[in-house]
Amino acid sequence: MHASNFSSEEEKFQVRKLQISDKNKGFIELLRQLTVCDSVSDKDFEDRFRELSALGDDHIISVIEDESSGKIIATGSIFIEKKFLRNCGKVGHIEDVVVDSNARGLKLGKKIIAFLTEHAHLMGCYKVILDCSLENKAFYEKCGFKQKEIQMVKYFI
Amino acid sequence: MHASNFSSEEEKFQVRKLQISDKNKGFIELLRQLTVCDSVSDKDFEDRFRELSALGDDHIISVIEDESSGKIIATGSIFIEKKFLRNCGKVGHIEDVVVDSNARGLKLGKKIIAFLTEHAHLMGCYKVILDCSLENKAFYEKCGFKQKEIQMVKYFI
Repeated sequence: MHASNFSSEEEKFQVRKLQISDKNKGFIELLRQLTVCDSVSDKDFEDRFRELSALGDDHIISVIEDESSGKIIATGSIFIEKKFLRNCGKVGHIEDVVVDSNARGLKLGKKIIAFLTEHAHLMGCYKVILDCSLENKAFYEKCGFKQKEIQMVKYFI
Repeated sequence: MHASNFSSEEEKFQVRKLQISDKNKGFIELLRQLTVCDSVSDKDFEDRFRELSALGDDHIISVIEDESSGKIIATGSIFIEKKFLRNCGKVGHIEDVVVDSNARGLKLGKKIIAFLTEHAHLMGCYKVILDCSLENKAFYEKCGFKQKEIQMVKYFI
């Protein structure tokens, strides 16, 4: 019984790529749990979606939809940076990882990170990096990451 | 006299965008001061150069050439990440900043950072970020940055 429950749970929470229709499934509201994000117009959403889609595998936004509620309950994105150093190497940058506050404890964050990390690997990156708060360090360590540098920021607004 | 010396010094160290001919001016050798970078073939260099050029203002590699030696003595790059959050906001990511070990003390690093930061501002980014070692924190603070998060990394090779 346990095994079959597990398997249906697995099916219930599949990671997939963002679709344009996800705007109506609470994607922007989910991002708002992470930082400021006023309502985005349908046109602005579509324009940005198309801009990012044009980058193909160099920019992926992953989401998990709760099939029962039809809501997006987890997301995370990655873009592939192409360098000259490391013999024209590539680096995956993970950004904007958030799990709905009502869906914690289901290991959705881990699934999102595994998906994005695997994408970086398949794209031939020599490493994948992300910035996080000290508070989230332990979570990323469980995902196989190690602390390396510090992040510096300058805001314009 | 001082003023005219200063002005010729200013002219001597102009920040400009990377050109294909910079491969023969020690650009790869300069990157090697930062991290592993074996010799890159002309073809690989040109392919990567064209790939990055195709991104236009969304990816800029800046360099400073020492006119007297004809060598590239400082570099830093930036790419513009487009997001949905922050009302479809944009973030500048500064990467691969290095000043030739023989050209320290000329404030070339500060010039490179000012150039890249200004680019992010002009591109409408709401912030510009970078990762650095604790050792370089004070330098970036002088450039107007503040420490915010920590960087986590996972290596594939």
